[in-house]
Amino acid sequence: INWGSSVQAHTYRRALDAILKLGTVEEHVKNFRPQALVLTGNPICRPAIIDFVSLLTHGHSLMICGNIILDDPLVNIKLCEKKDDAVNWLKKRNSKAFYSTVISPTVRQGAQALLQCAGVGKMRPNLVFMGFKNDWYSQPEHLVNDYFNIIHDALDLNLGIGILRLKSGLDFSDFFGGSDVLIDEFADDVYDVDEDDEDFISTPLNKTKMNHTNETNNVIRKIRSTDVMVLKNTIINEGALQSMNIFRQSQISSAVIDVWWLFDDGGLTLLIPYLLRRRKRWKECQLRIFSCVCGEKQAADQQHLAMASLLSKFRINYDDLHVLHGLNKQPNEYEIQKFNQLIQSLSGENTLNNESKETSSWNISASELEANKDKIKRGLRLHEMLLEYSSTSTLIIVTLPIPRKNSISCGLYMSWLESISHDLPPLLFLRGNQSNVLTYYS
Amino acid sequence: INWGSSVQAHTYRRALDAILKLGTVEEHVKNFRPQALVLTGNPICRPAIIDFVSLLTHGHSLMICGNIILDDPLVNIKLCEKKDDAVNWLKKRNSKAFYSTVISPTVRQGAQALLQCAGVGKMRPNLVFMGFKNDWYSQPEHLVNDYFNIIHDALDLNLGIGILRLKSGLDFSDFFGGSDVLIDEFADDVYDVDEDDEDFISTPLNKTKMNHTNETNNVIRKIRSTDVMVLKNTIINEGALQSMNIFRQSQISSAVIDVWWLFDDGGLTLLIPYLLRRRKRWKECQLRIFSCVCGEKQAADQQHLAMASLLSKFRINYDDLHVLHGLNKQPNEYEIQKFNQLIQSLSGENTLNNESKETSSWNISASELEANKDKIKRGLRLHEMLLEYSSTSTLIIVTLPIPRKNSISCGLYMSWLESISHDLPPLLFLRGNQSNVLTYYS
Repeated sequence: INWGSSVQAHTYRRALDAILKLGTVEEHVKNFRPQALVLTGNPICRPAIIDFVSLLTHGHSLMICGNIILDDPLVNIKLCEKKDDAVNWLKKRNSKAFYSTVISPTVRQGAQALLQCAGVGKMRPNLVFMGFKNDWYSQPEHLVNDYFNIIHDALDLNLGIGILRLKSGLDFSDFFGGSDVLIDEFADDVYDVDEDDEDFISTPLNKTKMNHTNETNNVIRKIRSTDVMVLKNTIINEGALQSMNIFRQSQISSAVIDVWWLFDDGGLTLLIPYLLRRRKRWKECQLRIFSCVCGEKQAADQQHLAMASLLSKFRINYDDLHVLHGLNKQPNEYEIQKFNQLIQSLSGENTLNNESKETSSWNISASELEANKDKIKRGLRLHEMLLEYSSTSTLIIVTLPIPRKNSISCGLYMSWLESISHDLPPLLFLRGNQSNVLTYYS
Repeated sequence: INWGSSVQAHTYRRALDAILKLGTVEEHVKNFRPQALVLTGNPICRPAIIDFVSLLTHGHSLMICGNIILDDPLVNIKLCEKKDDAVNWLKKRNSKAFYSTVISPTVRQGAQALLQCAGVGKMRPNLVFMGFKNDWYSQPEHLVNDYFNIIHDALDLNLGIGILRLKSGLDFSDFFGGSDVLIDEFADDVYDVDEDDEDFISTPLNKTKMNHTNETNNVIRKIRSTDVMVLKNTIINEGALQSMNIFRQSQISSAVIDVWWLFDDGGLTLLIPYLLRRRKRWKECQLRIFSCVCGEKQAADQQHLAMASLLSKFRINYDDLHVLHGLNKQPNEYEIQKFNQLIQSLSGENTLNNESKETSSWNISASELEANKDKIKRGLRLHEMLLEYSSTSTLIIVTLPIPRKNSISCGLYMSWLESISHDLPPLLFLRGNQSNVLTYYS
């Protein structure tokens, strides 16, 4: 006789009781956990950011993958999408993440719904992760504006923000057919990598490396052999596959995480690499901390002392601490030229297509440029330094500069982020919500 | 030394682990629980519906109070609202409910955000509760349309729906000042009732009754004494206070729940009164089940046998089972007249204010009326029967007629609901999502 399982019934009760109990717990800086909402779209298409955030939350704190499906919910809110596929994929990918979909006419509206409503009680996101829009300047302006405004919304709602940039971008949906079935098939192939991947983590490193390339080749072969229709571009190159799985690879011991701590944001920028290094794969990696001062060498030395003492109080083990000076110096010609080209191409596009008159905010005014001149310059200098020190690192974490409302437009802000982060290894812009997440008071 | 409490840290882990575990549990009809999203606005202003739903969920299943704050989130999404007030009020009211706010330009958009995003994993609402808009015909049409469409949305998203109607309406915000502080003060007064209320539940019934009226008077006195400015209408009459607390009063043993089970909706209409009667306050009450058939007495007798056997298989104890016949008969003159008046006042309003041309859907076309003639008639007959059998009951539960898309307009549907439910004791329209919540298979 199948009465339904009482164990299952109890599982529900336990979950509910636990969340209710959690409501009575006061928040304390020492109990801070990054609870992440990841704007992933269909998670199957953006494996890298999911892997990355999974490393941070690791089943120890909340992770919700949000998929905003563009459609008019006023007409039809019915969920046509098969939720199970994504949930199963997440499970197979070993990511202890929840999955939430929302149908919305614009990305921003959907993001707002998720930002405001996702979660229950105290089990709510306090940190939003997004991918960097590598191709933003060629996208329709309203999309980029939406993207820019989601950053504002998250800050307004007192959430931290992480923006991950890979050279190859994060969205691999081009490699997948449009239809669900096709994604399914491909997903199965990816699973194979996963399981093996899990296995060889525990093997010695050298062997691992070997295995891995073999595996990769295997997968490519498998994908090719199963069905050519599976992929829109029949040729999936190893590079793309590696980018897709960049945060699943077991890290070789020479991995380096560079933290560029530019503003005090409550400590999140330091907490994230700390959490990363608690994962087996990142345990052996080096952590280098960079800071910049505007003044000369003396100021840098002072700052160095202060930071070293702070970090030791926080008991954060780092391998290297650099305080760089001369952030205020003139950036080199190349950087300036590159930036000007970008700005010009933005306004240039505008003057060319006279039809699209409404794209006015692309038009970065001279006065706005003037007002933000110093910030931009520091951004360019920062990129110079990043290139100098971190161009071979495994992961760069940089404090995200905050867009002040009404003082910087979408176009200029995106150009600013672009010029800081282009042509670099995987880079995470990160910003806490200013409330402390680290403390040395006891 | 305050390191933060590890107990608190574990509370979080337990909650997260439990929800993750829950994700692996397959749904089973025998483990169905009503997980409620209650559209309450500021919960302090709608105590009755919160008390009611709390009786159903009772800390055994999820309850989320959703507050939609009308504002343009594109401009400013910052939460100006003090969430803590509402949360504290819910706690004092002994309601194990979560509280979620969303800023949205329209009620519908906010409701869609909540319907789609609230909750996490399998801890999500499967049932939406709203109050009936008693004054819908005097409201701006777009508001009523929004309301109507939320019903559609909920059904589209496969959620059950409950619509609670009190004669006095549910929204007591008129009695509260606009400002938060004032509500605060008043809320404090209400707390007093609560605590005493909780006490005298355990006392014998007679004494209870006595206490209660005393308490009520006390509160009124207190409210008056503390600050006249607390209330917009300085005179809060006992009737309003009783309506506010209608589902907190300990039920006298003569309480009667009448279930009018008109359509099969998977059993939710039967499950809800069953759950209600598991609460101490409703334990002694009578449960009467009504059903209607269109045919004559013979059909009714057959239906009676079938239902009696069904109910005994479901092991639902009822005190009375009526199967009424003649639902297809012509309703009496009074009902027809009343309905026609309502319809006319709707279209009449339209012809009067020629300025508001866009209020076209109020204009119920003759063809629409004709197409829905039989339904409406049955509704009027139903109201006749409700008056005849249930006009002195404590609570009436009626299956909610579903608005078929494109076949019934907002105005006609609302008129239909109106004419079924007016001038009756507290009435709950209820509709499951057609999936079974009861089973006798084992």
